[in-house]
Amino acid sequence: LRDVASSTVRRLSLYLQFLHECEARGLATVSSGALAERGGASPAQVRKDLSFFGSFGRRGVGYSVPLLAGRLREILGLVRRYRVILVGAGRVGAALAAYPGFRQRGFDVVAVYDADPARIGGAVDGLLVRSHERLEADLAAERADIAVIATPAGAAQGVADRLVKAGVRALLNFAPVTLAVPPAVTVSDVNMALELEALSYALHRASPQR
Amino acid sequence: LRDVASSTVRRLSLYLQFLHECEARGLATVSSGALAERGGASPAQVRKDLSFFGSFGRRGVGYSVPLLAGRLREILGLVRRYRVILVGAGRVGAALAAYPGFRQRGFDVVAVYDADPARIGGAVDGLLVRSHERLEADLAAERADIAVIATPAGAAQGVADRLVKAGVRALLNFAPVTLAVPPAVTVSDVNMALELEALSYALHRASPQR
Repeated sequence: LRDVASSTVRRLSLYLQFLHECEARGLATVSSGALAERGGASPAQVRKDLSFFGSFGRRGVGYSVPLLAGRLREILGLVRRYRVILVGAGRVGAALAAYPGFRQRGFDVVAVYDADPARIGGAVDGLLVRSHERLEADLAAERADIAVIATPAGAAQGVADRLVKAGVRALLNFAPVTLAVPPAVTVSDVNMALELEALSYALHRASPQR
Repeated sequence: LRDVASSTVRRLSLYLQFLHECEARGLATVSSGALAERGGASPAQVRKDLSFFGSFGRRGVGYSVPLLAGRLREILGLVRRYRVILVGAGRVGAALAAYPGFRQRGFDVVAVYDADPARIGGAVDGLLVRSHERLEADLAAERADIAVIATPAGAAQGVADRLVKAGVRALLNFAPVTLAVPPAVTVSDVNMALELEALSYALHRASPQR
């Protein structure tokens, strides 16, 4: 598997989402133009993105929806299930654990941790909330593929350090902090406050006097 | 106000989040090293980021927390309130409308729209769900600063086109699609599926046979 730019991976995800909709609507083929529109790319870019992984299209016919969807699921690693642990069982963490899209996409939340004694022993979406002190022992007994960090900002780097040391190689970070991790570890960030502030910055810049 | 790179805006947001925590803890000053850690930057980068907007620090003393926080709020346009409309009152939209961080940061959801007759006339977080057909007339009567798009993917571009035509200049997009908009319009994307697939891609690439 060749390494590709993260912007390419994002477009592949968008193409796949569109192909899932095509599958649901019973469409057999799709044009590079339709894929391009969804991925925010040109048809030429779509053809380039997809040719990178092999040839799926036929001139004048378009791409086979099931073949291309299957290949994209393979490329994106969605042909297996992932063991996910969740650190932080507050409002964000609880909403995430209950998010059906997680499981639908093959991501199984298998354990939930918190540092707050008031939360430990409680339940989040049917899972017992464990003490964060058990993280290392649990991860030594059974690996996790992905850890979701939904702690307060001040705790996130410390938790990330412990997870990385315990062998976790992929972090989904909801804390408003940029995590420092070794190159072998991948971090994805979801931060609505940052996205909102990017908008307020742009609006303010456009008309600061308003 | 000078134009700055979006990566700089993101670091400024992270610094500000940290300063809010410092304010809550009653700290008067903060070092560039502490800001750097939170923003995922070097202390030199912090000094460069902040000097870009004027000088806030004193050698050996650090930055004044209230002065720097106030200046960052100004730079990021957080010294005013924003009128936000929400298009799409499904599960994501309803969760967003109820999100307290929205209002706390100065973003007031003033109207909610949907295309589904089963939802129109209902309520989301105390707001009546209006028919999407009213979008243009409502926006002509009273502007919106930001529109949140929480529609199904297939509807998002059409909604974005209508919003842009009606004068909205900032979109927060939760639909899994790359929106095409004119250069004067700013789009921020929040897409957890993409973030998850970036992780599964990275894990799969690291050990495809597993």
